[in-house]
Amino acid sequence: MKPGIPKGTRDFGPKAVKKRNYIFNIIKGVFTKYGFDSIETPVMENLQTLTGKYGEEGDKLLFKVLNNGDYLAKADQQALEDKNSNKLTSSISKRGMRYDLTVPFARFVVMHQNDLAFPFKRFQIQPVWRADRPAKGRYQEFYQCDVDIIGSKSLTYEAELCFIYDEIFDALGLDVEIRINNRKILAGLAAFVGVEDKFQDMTVAIDKLDKIGPEKVILEMTERGIPKEAATTVLELIGQKDLEAFEKTLNTQELAMEGIAELKKVYKYLSTKTMKNTVVFDPCLARGLNYYTGAIFEVVGLNVNMGSLGGGGRYADLTSIFGLKDMSGVGVSLGAERIYDVMLEKELFPSDLDEGLDLLLIAMDEEAHDFGFSQLSQIRSAGIQAELYPDPTKMKKQMKYANARQAKFVAIIGSEELEKQQFTLKDMVTGNQQLVDIKALIDKLS
Amino acid sequence: MKPGIPKGTRDFGPKAVKKRNYIFNIIKGVFTKYGFDSIETPVMENLQTLTGKYGEEGDKLLFKVLNNGDYLAKADQQALEDKNSNKLTSSISKRGMRYDLTVPFARFVVMHQNDLAFPFKRFQIQPVWRADRPAKGRYQEFYQCDVDIIGSKSLTYEAELCFIYDEIFDALGLDVEIRINNRKILAGLAAFVGVEDKFQDMTVAIDKLDKIGPEKVILEMTERGIPKEAATTVLELIGQKDLEAFEKTLNTQELAMEGIAELKKVYKYLSTKTMKNTVVFDPCLARGLNYYTGAIFEVVGLNVNMGSLGGGGRYADLTSIFGLKDMSGVGVSLGAERIYDVMLEKELFPSDLDEGLDLLLIAMDEEAHDFGFSQLSQIRSAGIQAELYPDPTKMKKQMKYANARQAKFVAIIGSEELEKQQFTLKDMVTGNQQLVDIKALIDKLS
Repeated sequence: MKPGIPKGTRDFGPKAVKKRNYIFNIIKGVFTKYGFDSIETPVMENLQTLTGKYGEEGDKLLFKVLNNGDYLAKADQQALEDKNSNKLTSSISKRGMRYDLTVPFARFVVMHQNDLAFPFKRFQIQPVWRADRPAKGRYQEFYQCDVDIIGSKSLTYEAELCFIYDEIFDALGLDVEIRINNRKILAGLAAFVGVEDKFQDMTVAIDKLDKIGPEKVILEMTERGIPKEAATTVLELIGQKDLEAFEKTLNTQELAMEGIAELKKVYKYLSTKTMKNTVVFDPCLARGLNYYTGAIFEVVGLNVNMGSLGGGGRYADLTSIFGLKDMSGVGVSLGAERIYDVMLEKELFPSDLDEGLDLLLIAMDEEAHDFGFSQLSQIRSAGIQAELYPDPTKMKKQMKYANARQAKFVAIIGSEELEKQQFTLKDMVTGNQQLVDIKALIDKLS
Repeated sequence: MKPGIPKGTRDFGPKAVKKRNYIFNIIKGVFTKYGFDSIETPVMENLQTLTGKYGEEGDKLLFKVLNNGDYLAKADQQALEDKNSNKLTSSISKRGMRYDLTVPFARFVVMHQNDLAFPFKRFQIQPVWRADRPAKGRYQEFYQCDVDIIGSKSLTYEAELCFIYDEIFDALGLDVEIRINNRKILAGLAAFVGVEDKFQDMTVAIDKLDKIGPEKVILEMTERGIPKEAATTVLELIGQKDLEAFEKTLNTQELAMEGIAELKKVYKYLSTKTMKNTVVFDPCLARGLNYYTGAIFEVVGLNVNMGSLGGGGRYADLTSIFGLKDMSGVGVSLGAERIYDVMLEKELFPSDLDEGLDLLLIAMDEEAHDFGFSQLSQIRSAGIQAELYPDPTKMKKQMKYANARQAKFVAIIGSEELEKQQFTLKDMVTGNQQLVDIKALIDKLS
């Protein structure tokens, strides 16, 4: 049997794990600095928690876990007879795998509402699963990094999320543009052109502007029942990236003016801190998810060909699907997998992540080997990452291992060294060798 | 809809995550000190990677993931007609969820053998899933912490794994006993009493000695076809916890003598380091898993009523199931969930894990609130974890939040403070208040 792993999944070896942890640690550090706490939710959720939350397409992409035991005994017999997979599923599967971190977060907040202090600030860095067709940069199992504040309408949080993006990408060494918009402006715009009832269609279409261009967006809008004239006006207006211009055009639209005022307030908060990256008003930014109701964000890498590196927004009512109303929140996420790919491509990982062992001890015979082992604890106590090659085998084989482990130093123990209780210490970079005792060895490597 | 999570799974809120990370970080720190690197494998494995590796019982406890799309179209039609759940499964599910970290490790080593330097030292801390009946301390989704060396027969690694156990439990503040045995001694013992062909039955039975007592072990052995006389002799022999006594009794058994010599060598290596906990020869220790072929380990907490906190052993041939022969390895695992429970019970977590915010700013009106926000970046830059209550609402509500977040200090900004650009800094432990400017505030809290 030839071993393999499911398509769209990955093994991470030592080097990849170090690089991934480097990214996660920077992200966690900034989240923690801003007062966010980590929570973790189970990989498996009840299927009814997940179903219907991600649209029809999302339901299809959910991984469902088969019930254990004799699941066919309790299966929907009609669905079985009809060979109706879709209908059968809920009777043979009651659990699904987490599809994102937002729905589990909403579920968590509702379940634990009596134990939480609101506004509740949490971050969550865990993998999610989607049965999407695997492609370059698209996996079936991948990490999401979410940060949210729930239980407050304060716009200070919108500003702080921009600070968080800014500090994280700065620490990672990536130049980005943080794009911001407000769904109220878009809703006011829809009202202004008389397609209030087609708001969702309009946002889904203009969200694709970067990808497919203005003509195709207009075409998509008309196909979705928006009059061509209205669609054209929308495109003309969102082409203006000037907030003042919006304010003039939409001054009769109360909701739009509310969104503009919110945006101005966010900019006022942003002005209190020197940022490395800029926050740009982008009226084309729509974000397709229909739970966003206020500010929306997107981060795009500059000088990289890699789409969005993160996004998010404010939601007025995320937890109401689980029965808890009036819990406004705002959050963003970071596309850790894409960030990883960009950082690899641009060689932004610090070189010491790839560093190997500090020291490999190499013994030439059984007695020397025992001596080598007896010295290890003392060396390790000094904070030196040291190992003894497991057997006193051929020098060549041991040196090959030293190279494979990228050992910085090798300490050779032959019969002569053993007699003196010393080591021939070899610097693997310069090739220099010197005879040292244990104290000198520790001094040299500490 | 009332939100819930599947039985046997758990949410971890901020406090639990901090405690769990405290444990994981200590474990990772010691693993890293000893030269082990972290790897990660996917949650979903191909079902054929998992099936048949954990015995018949294990196969039943595997969580299987339903194929996406119209899975019934490709289902085994005969199994469907017969309503044979067992037979149907492989035709509607090709993926399963990781059941342990050992099989994925073996699969990883075989798949990536050309990229690895042997002996390969890895650790892996990830959750696993088992459809076991949930009970106190038994979950369907739980973490395992495994550390293994593969590609060497050297007994230095047996000793180092004992050092690792010792250092980890010492750092956690738990007193433990590390029990060691060697399956070769048990195999020799089986030969000595003439039940070589019943070796597996014998080990499965004596592994239960602590739980069910000697009489029931003898009963189980006889039920498994071992003559009563042989069973009684086995029990008498393993009752002697003295290695010398074993050496005398089994001196005609070559394999047993090999196991005894190995154990002595391990003890010789152990003598090179001062350990906090003791390594005890325990001939009753058998470990039911049949892939162990040499040393076997178990860690038991002293003064706690909580069974095994870890275990492991040497396997001669783990990777051969995936086609790679002659890869001897040795590894142990830590029962992180049980360690967590014991540490909670014995209150061993450091109290600063429960510490809250350094500082909460509280503003009395809109203008004071804006001023408060404008000061946050400077305060945070000094390494102080500070937040501003999101709205200038009633004092009482803001103070309640400060308490809920366990803020160490509160800085109040009223109209008077605003005028002077100062803060009334309140120590939440002593209740002391003083009027300070931003510099004094930062000095005080840094």
